[in-house]
Amino acid sequence: MSAPGRAVLALSGGVGGAKLALGLAQECAAGQLHVVANTGDDFRHLGLYISPDIDTLLYTLSGRANQSLGWGLAAETWHTMEALQELGGDTWFRLGDRDLATHLWRSQQLAMGRELGEVTADLARRLGVQTRVFPMSDDPIATTVHTPEGLLPFQHYFVRYQCQPVVTGFSFAGIESARPNAELMAVLGGGAYAAIVVCPSNPFVSVDPILQVPGLWQALRDQPAPVILVSPIVAGRALKGPAAKMMTELGHGASALEVARFYHQRYPGLVDYFVIDSSDATLAPAIGELDMDVAITCTVMHSAADKRALARFCLALGEG
Amino acid sequence: MSAPGRAVLALSGGVGGAKLALGLAQECAAGQLHVVANTGDDFRHLGLYISPDIDTLLYTLSGRANQSLGWGLAAETWHTMEALQELGGDTWFRLGDRDLATHLWRSQQLAMGRELGEVTADLARRLGVQTRVFPMSDDPIATTVHTPEGLLPFQHYFVRYQCQPVVTGFSFAGIESARPNAELMAVLGGGAYAAIVVCPSNPFVSVDPILQVPGLWQALRDQPAPVILVSPIVAGRALKGPAAKMMTELGHGASALEVARFYHQRYPGLVDYFVIDSSDATLAPAIGELDMDVAITCTVMHSAADKRALARFCLALGEG
Repeated sequence: MSAPGRAVLALSGGVGGAKLALGLAQECAAGQLHVVANTGDDFRHLGLYISPDIDTLLYTLSGRANQSLGWGLAAETWHTMEALQELGGDTWFRLGDRDLATHLWRSQQLAMGRELGEVTADLARRLGVQTRVFPMSDDPIATTVHTPEGLLPFQHYFVRYQCQPVVTGFSFAGIESARPNAELMAVLGGGAYAAIVVCPSNPFVSVDPILQVPGLWQALRDQPAPVILVSPIVAGRALKGPAAKMMTELGHGASALEVARFYHQRYPGLVDYFVIDSSDATLAPAIGELDMDVAITCTVMHSAADKRALARFCLALGEG
Repeated sequence: MSAPGRAVLALSGGVGGAKLALGLAQECAAGQLHVVANTGDDFRHLGLYISPDIDTLLYTLSGRANQSLGWGLAAETWHTMEALQELGGDTWFRLGDRDLATHLWRSQQLAMGRELGEVTADLARRLGVQTRVFPMSDDPIATTVHTPEGLLPFQHYFVRYQCQPVVTGFSFAGIESARPNAELMAVLGGGAYAAIVVCPSNPFVSVDPILQVPGLWQALRDQPAPVILVSPIVAGRALKGPAAKMMTELGHGASALEVARFYHQRYPGLVDYFVIDSSDATLAPAIGELDMDVAITCTVMHSAADKRALARFCLALGEG
């Protein structure tokens, strides 16, 4: 347990980041973990507002995540999708029967004029999640994947085409005019966080959209708390998802060193500690030249104990 | 089988009417049954456009109706509702997991700007239903139940409060400016129907809204085909639903004679044959005085054979 009185902030995308967020939630005092979630993946589908990363976080933190599937809800069934397929409807984005309740409820709340941040806090409460989960912004932001064949909305790239198109870049529609979530900014304004942990999420499509929300990364950089970033690339491979494939296609090469370079160039002075896996220890000297301290531990999270151990390691860095 | 070349039109509400519609569909040549459905029950719920009577008809006609439940789809599950209940969402209107696909699909089609009639025809095709099902109107009409405590949207009266409030009257919001479905009116304009059968549906909240759509009842009255109405009240009780309770509360008394009086007063000259159950044979002379012929048969439909027998009886009346 870290000191009960001080809160910790995590930045997270979906499945990969949520693993560490769960470890952090278990290692922090009740309610003392806050998470800012990427909402660039959010989209409207079948008339529903779907917020994949927020849902993954809430399902994981409430113990409802589907362990065998790796996404969605435990004990899920697919009868709506089966019936929709019979009707010839859109079924490429698989919405489970139980998961649908979340989308129906959230869409109804948003249609009533409530803000995404307020609706997310309410949803967390209803799911019994004590961690505060903030969307990076209550305003709509749409991650767009650039490919040689044109632009793809993120979920089309990620789910419909299963990350197969070659990536040439990314943009985040709406981000220039988006405001960071006001509650998060209020806590940041108080400078109360003991540590800021960037979970091992995709640099391009999970963490970058969060940091691109106007004013957000500067506010994080200017916190008294150290920023601890866990590399999502271990031994040249992504812990989860298409990060390594994207890095290769963008000409970076896939390595923890290239991840560190990405953040160093784009967000100078943001990262205080760059956490790499023991298998990447040889990269430490080169990363150390990028104005960040390198910390080495086992970052691959298979078990619940792994998640808590990595969380403890990050929190210990935060305590200096 | 009636003559293959001539179409038959049925007017129907939900479950009670759909039974006879199924019998008629089986007794008519393929595609030669048309049904005009009540859409006064339609409403938006959880952001979805729900059309209960159209769905009951399409599920019944496609062999998908839930026989044991008496409504909804066969082999239905309720996982979305269970999860929504956990979230504290609205679950008084029970939407099954498979049924949800229909509402998601229809809502998406309507959001694209398609008309309800076109969407209904498309849905029927996708469900393999050869019967043409017309909504009474493509325009929104909302049946409202008047009670001593105030006005209730129909589904709130019917499902949420299970028909318990005392009824003092009905209104159909939007009906004055609604246009009857154009395809139906085109067929009526051709005068091609061999018979028009008013299914044993609720006079007040199923058939009346259809007949109140401006121009519709006059067009039916002026058809060369006879109009054959099957009493929904047998031996003083409703075959299905709250019709008898409503009649009592409105001071009519619940009997097939009172049903005949209702139509005679409201729609003079519309009904040519009034079909009553054998158990109501003593009412025949009094009904006969209301400018309609009385036809007596067994109108209670338990089995598939019962439905076909009543359908054959009605079609035989149509053939004169």
